[in-house]
Amino acid sequence: MLVVQKYGGSSVADAGRICRVARRVADVYEQGHQVVVVVSAMGDTTDELIHLVSEITGNPPDREMDVLLSTGEQVSIALLAIAIKDLDKPVISLTGAQVGILTDNSHTKARILKVNSTRLRGELDRGNIVVVAGFQGIDEKNDITTLGRGGSDTTAVALAASLKADLCEIYTDVDGVYTTDPRVVPEARKLDEVSYEEMLELANLGAVVLHPRSVELAMQYKIPLHVRSSFNHNLGTIVKEAVNMEKALVVTGVAYDSNVAKLGIYNVFDKPGVAYRLFKALADEKINVDMIVQSAMRDDRNDISFTCTQADLNKAQSVLERILPDLGADGFSCEDGVAKVSIVGAGMVSNPGVAAMMFEALAEKGINLEMISTSEIKVSVIIREEDAKRAVQALHDKFNMARGSQE
Amino acid sequence: MLVVQKYGGSSVADAGRICRVARRVADVYEQGHQVVVVVSAMGDTTDELIHLVSEITGNPPDREMDVLLSTGEQVSIALLAIAIKDLDKPVISLTGAQVGILTDNSHTKARILKVNSTRLRGELDRGNIVVVAGFQGIDEKNDITTLGRGGSDTTAVALAASLKADLCEIYTDVDGVYTTDPRVVPEARKLDEVSYEEMLELANLGAVVLHPRSVELAMQYKIPLHVRSSFNHNLGTIVKEAVNMEKALVVTGVAYDSNVAKLGIYNVFDKPGVAYRLFKALADEKINVDMIVQSAMRDDRNDISFTCTQADLNKAQSVLERILPDLGADGFSCEDGVAKVSIVGAGMVSNPGVAAMMFEALAEKGINLEMISTSEIKVSVIIREEDAKRAVQALHDKFNMARGSQE
Repeated sequence: MLVVQKYGGSSVADAGRICRVARRVADVYEQGHQVVVVVSAMGDTTDELIHLVSEITGNPPDREMDVLLSTGEQVSIALLAIAIKDLDKPVISLTGAQVGILTDNSHTKARILKVNSTRLRGELDRGNIVVVAGFQGIDEKNDITTLGRGGSDTTAVALAASLKADLCEIYTDVDGVYTTDPRVVPEARKLDEVSYEEMLELANLGAVVLHPRSVELAMQYKIPLHVRSSFNHNLGTIVKEAVNMEKALVVTGVAYDSNVAKLGIYNVFDKPGVAYRLFKALADEKINVDMIVQSAMRDDRNDISFTCTQADLNKAQSVLERILPDLGADGFSCEDGVAKVSIVGAGMVSNPGVAAMMFEALAEKGINLEMISTSEIKVSVIIREEDAKRAVQALHDKFNMARGSQE
Repeated sequence: MLVVQKYGGSSVADAGRICRVARRVADVYEQGHQVVVVVSAMGDTTDELIHLVSEITGNPPDREMDVLLSTGEQVSIALLAIAIKDLDKPVISLTGAQVGILTDNSHTKARILKVNSTRLRGELDRGNIVVVAGFQGIDEKNDITTLGRGGSDTTAVALAASLKADLCEIYTDVDGVYTTDPRVVPEARKLDEVSYEEMLELANLGAVVLHPRSVELAMQYKIPLHVRSSFNHNLGTIVKEAVNMEKALVVTGVAYDSNVAKLGIYNVFDKPGVAYRLFKALADEKINVDMIVQSAMRDDRNDISFTCTQADLNKAQSVLERILPDLGADGFSCEDGVAKVSIVGAGMVSNPGVAAMMFEALAEKGINLEMISTSEIKVSVIIREEDAKRAVQALHDKFNMARGSQE
């Protein structure tokens, strides 16, 4: 079997942990498998490097930041290879450039274009364990790039896809994917399986175990992911295609995000181009808009509400003030201190009334809904931030997630 | 003018020093010159990485050590490029691999085979300042190599040779090359010029400003080196071809090395192959032998003496014990606690009696000579270690080095 394993920064934070990872890798190798190991930078390395830069300038060029930050993973691969070699296993480390991860030239947030796995295959064929630097690649000019957030997960999935690996294991500091945040709901249950689509919604909604882009890539190439802890040998959560959609849980998980601001604009003209002008103006200022809700209120007038991160609230407010006359709007509102709570489940599409059950649960707790948005496999609501944790608990209870049956 | 500058680890030890180096580089660029800057790893980076390894194993593979240690210079080039960019100068950093420094595959002590300067030239032609990682290269398998001791100086000289640079400046934490160690002889004088040959002898004899291999390379390609301090703007020492040998100082400098052990072997057969067998046996144990003196004592018997580092003394002693019978020797001696003191000068070759003056100066101080070895431009003696500093001072006085005239 060909296995790709990925270990995050906390799994390789010091020499002791690196030796523990080496032991794990060696065990899999001893069972007769081929192993590719992707690692992130050790614990706080990246923060330390960023601090050094802050002593020089507030505005470093992206290309040089990539040269700088890519050293973090290079240190990790060397140390892990040294530790594996010390267990008498044949091993070789490869940087992003050496492994042939070709990206575009968007420094600090590059996208993978192609993986040239010739050398990687060659090293595996020679019987080597291959330790690969996550998060980094090289562009066509031979310049070092980094993949930005979720980069190491994405490296692991891309290598698994390119090698047609049998399994891709994502090691992290939690036991797997939970029905909701265990720090909020103590009865939160670890899921044994979750579909790509559900994982994608959960990831986008604030479950930080996997980055959405790595899930997308896994879904596209049908690579099963095993999300598990590097601190024990428990089975984690398998992310894969939804094979038994009929039997799937109606609601798989509850996610919440309290870094949300809500904006509304009243009585805009109900004619083509209004929404375009509004959201184009926001996009021009690089404001990332999340939920958008428009409701036809009266004959020829509309209200449009949307959310963004709290950091973008002031910028968004300036944009609204500027373009309000163009849109013929009566006024606008801005609101900090709200949260987004979402339920996700592949079974939802064939189960009418799930949204109603959600609203019922929240109404029972006296929680007011300020915005609602739905997709085929999720329902999101905007509520007051102080109600968020009570809402998550109420939904977890309502859908019996702790027991894992919703008949 | 095309200038290659090299800054050592102490010159880029923290953000403040990096900004100071950036300012220096920017100044030269503003004067209309093309600049290539070679940097070492920041201050203690290498030691910290080696300490991490020591927590994992005592026996790391060389290939992975190179992957690890090469990150040190990569951090330096990124930070320096960031600092130069902050001064609004066009700049790009290149690793050893990107700059095309092709080496053999002797990891941790690779030799440069070729510099492919296509990209380097291209960046210079585009008007960029180019910041290059010293100490590192890449072998034909695309594996990262490091050049070992003196590596960054060697990188700078190799690039200067490849680019046919007009000047190669070696920035360090001292003002230049001195007649002897200023910590031992307060009147030690900075030399304005020194020939490659003299520098080579001085470097080999313990003057740590430049590594012999970088001097050799400079000599081979006739690249003038300017050794100077990065902490002030004083002129340093120019290392170049000896153009005025007739006028050269008879004795340019005094060097000493107290890390010396002396071994002797008595009454060996005086026949072909004896020296070969002795020194082959020592070389097989990787013992680096420095001075070798053989004197024909009697008809058919010889004494052979040699020196090695104190660290190798025990190993050398075991070798002697083992092969003594083969050589027909009566016995051997080992002596720690000796030092080598040398005088160097290109003018020596045409000035008979220089060695005699040296022996006179030492005799006046009651210092006994245990071994003597001479070349065309140097005389070295082995003396008791406790006499070393007095000897250096006496020679510095005898040859008027503080005043710089020896008529």
